[in-house]
Amino acid sequence: MTRYSPEQLAERLRDGDRRALAQAITLIESTRPEHRVKAAQLLESLMPSTGNSVRLGISGVPGVGKSTFIEAFGNHITQQGHRVAVLAVDPTSALSGGSILGDKTRMETLSRNPNAFIRPSPAGKTLGGVTRRTRETLLLCEAGGFDVVLVETVGVGQSETAVAEMTDMFLLLLLPGGGDELQGIKRGIMELADLILVNKADGDSKVIAERTVTDYTMALHFLHSRSKNWQPRVQALSALNNQGVADVWETVNDFQAKLGDEIQHRRSAQAVNWLWAETADRLLDDLKGDASVRKRVAGLERDVTEGKLPPTVAAEQLINHYKSR
Amino acid sequence: MTRYSPEQLAERLRDGDRRALAQAITLIESTRPEHRVKAAQLLESLMPSTGNSVRLGISGVPGVGKSTFIEAFGNHITQQGHRVAVLAVDPTSALSGGSILGDKTRMETLSRNPNAFIRPSPAGKTLGGVTRRTRETLLLCEAGGFDVVLVETVGVGQSETAVAEMTDMFLLLLLPGGGDELQGIKRGIMELADLILVNKADGDSKVIAERTVTDYTMALHFLHSRSKNWQPRVQALSALNNQGVADVWETVNDFQAKLGDEIQHRRSAQAVNWLWAETADRLLDDLKGDASVRKRVAGLERDVTEGKLPPTVAAEQLINHYKSR
Repeated sequence: MTRYSPEQLAERLRDGDRRALAQAITLIESTRPEHRVKAAQLLESLMPSTGNSVRLGISGVPGVGKSTFIEAFGNHITQQGHRVAVLAVDPTSALSGGSILGDKTRMETLSRNPNAFIRPSPAGKTLGGVTRRTRETLLLCEAGGFDVVLVETVGVGQSETAVAEMTDMFLLLLLPGGGDELQGIKRGIMELADLILVNKADGDSKVIAERTVTDYTMALHFLHSRSKNWQPRVQALSALNNQGVADVWETVNDFQAKLGDEIQHRRSAQAVNWLWAETADRLLDDLKGDASVRKRVAGLERDVTEGKLPPTVAAEQLINHYKSR
Repeated sequence: MTRYSPEQLAERLRDGDRRALAQAITLIESTRPEHRVKAAQLLESLMPSTGNSVRLGISGVPGVGKSTFIEAFGNHITQQGHRVAVLAVDPTSALSGGSILGDKTRMETLSRNPNAFIRPSPAGKTLGGVTRRTRETLLLCEAGGFDVVLVETVGVGQSETAVAEMTDMFLLLLLPGGGDELQGIKRGIMELADLILVNKADGDSKVIAERTVTDYTMALHFLHSRSKNWQPRVQALSALNNQGVADVWETVNDFQAKLGDEIQHRRSAQAVNWLWAETADRLLDDLKGDASVRKRVAGLERDVTEGKLPPTVAAEQLINHYKSR
């Protein structure tokens, strides 16, 4: 895959070599054991260079204009002298064949922007696997000198929660009109949002968008804010006409100022949660991969499904098979 | 704890002996290894006698009148010839000292009702532990001939989701007025509800309650129904005046009729999810209990918190220590 040692790759990556970054991401996305070892060494040596970015999560249903917004927002902040990386968490990309960010023509100007780096969602059968690789890619991008990282996701299952768990601030894009457009948005997602953006506030929709802002500002009062230092806000914008995009960046800066040390505390908690979630995932994978376990899974699942065996008893049996290997 | 063998206990429990049921629950709640073995044998021999109840989850913020409703509802269905068991999932009961159902005077008449069985929430440090024991108690109650099982929970963390995962139908109690009363109710919970009950529809609140019913009926249109065979409903009632309580039981029967086989499919899926969640929990507990792991956890968590070590690498190290024991 790469002729460089993890140390050499780390050095070139820190020097801002985009090809080294791309190679490093391919390495951490690889499932081959020898690559996993190299990837671990690479990440470990890069850790001191990580943590220096603003980590933003972005979600919104298809058609809300996420890529138009990310392109406008990305170009705006690069003009401010920032370097932006755009990642994605899309567990469906494996099935749908190609990530939501796979087609770079979606963000033509941004993908050609020398200070922007766009990476499609890693493929993966489990959200946990996709999340792990995106988390690690985020660290690699930070080590590569990108000081703003956007992690995009579509509303599939728990992906928003996963993205909120790896970012500092969560942005939710909505369409003007509220009501019916809420179809498909899980209410639980509203709670994650530090900033709700009502996009397509242009043309005839402008007035409706303003009313939607008022409606959601009210609605947010019913939700517990995630931080005592920050009351979630709602803003209208038109990514298409580049109106209100600069305001979003101002709000992001305001958010950072208001949260202060809380951001570091959040990151520490996120890291420990990640450690234990990762440990549980890998342990379970290891158990599922165990030969003597594999022989029995189907039978035990059937007995449990048919109500012949209590799940707790079946679990105990699986673990005993696993440990007696 | 009990002088009976698991087989004897199972037989007496199936015969409807309440003391045997209580002993069996104490047994499955015990953490002592020899009790765990007996409990597993007991559950296994009882499995063929389980699955014959209507499993109802009930949630609502403190003050909404949950116990008043459960008492009125329980007494109503026992009059219809049913036998009802009332369980609880309250992870805070360990801290708050005493479960939300600990004080039986909360349900005076129901607790004296020969066809009702009330069991406080098991204590426990983790939701997973509390949930496991309540799931198993539910099975024991079914084997004991209770054909309606109510599992109550307060809105703490993920407890509603846990209860929805062990029941057929989820009831959410709300107060008249909607709006501000929603404070404290996580929006995600709305999605779990198959039936929303606006309680305290009496006196001056009656009119407000009716409006609340309309509001929530509208609100539910924005949410995806959990079943294509059932559109969640909203009903007003006064548990205090025993008005609308019979209607709730009718809706429950309608729900069962409409879902039909889907209920069994849900239960099968729940059982398999439980199997794997249980396996993951026990594996992680086993790892955390491992001596060579315990020696290193604190250091690894610190390195991860301080950003010196990637969580994935720390997880790998923990697992290697665990497996090399």
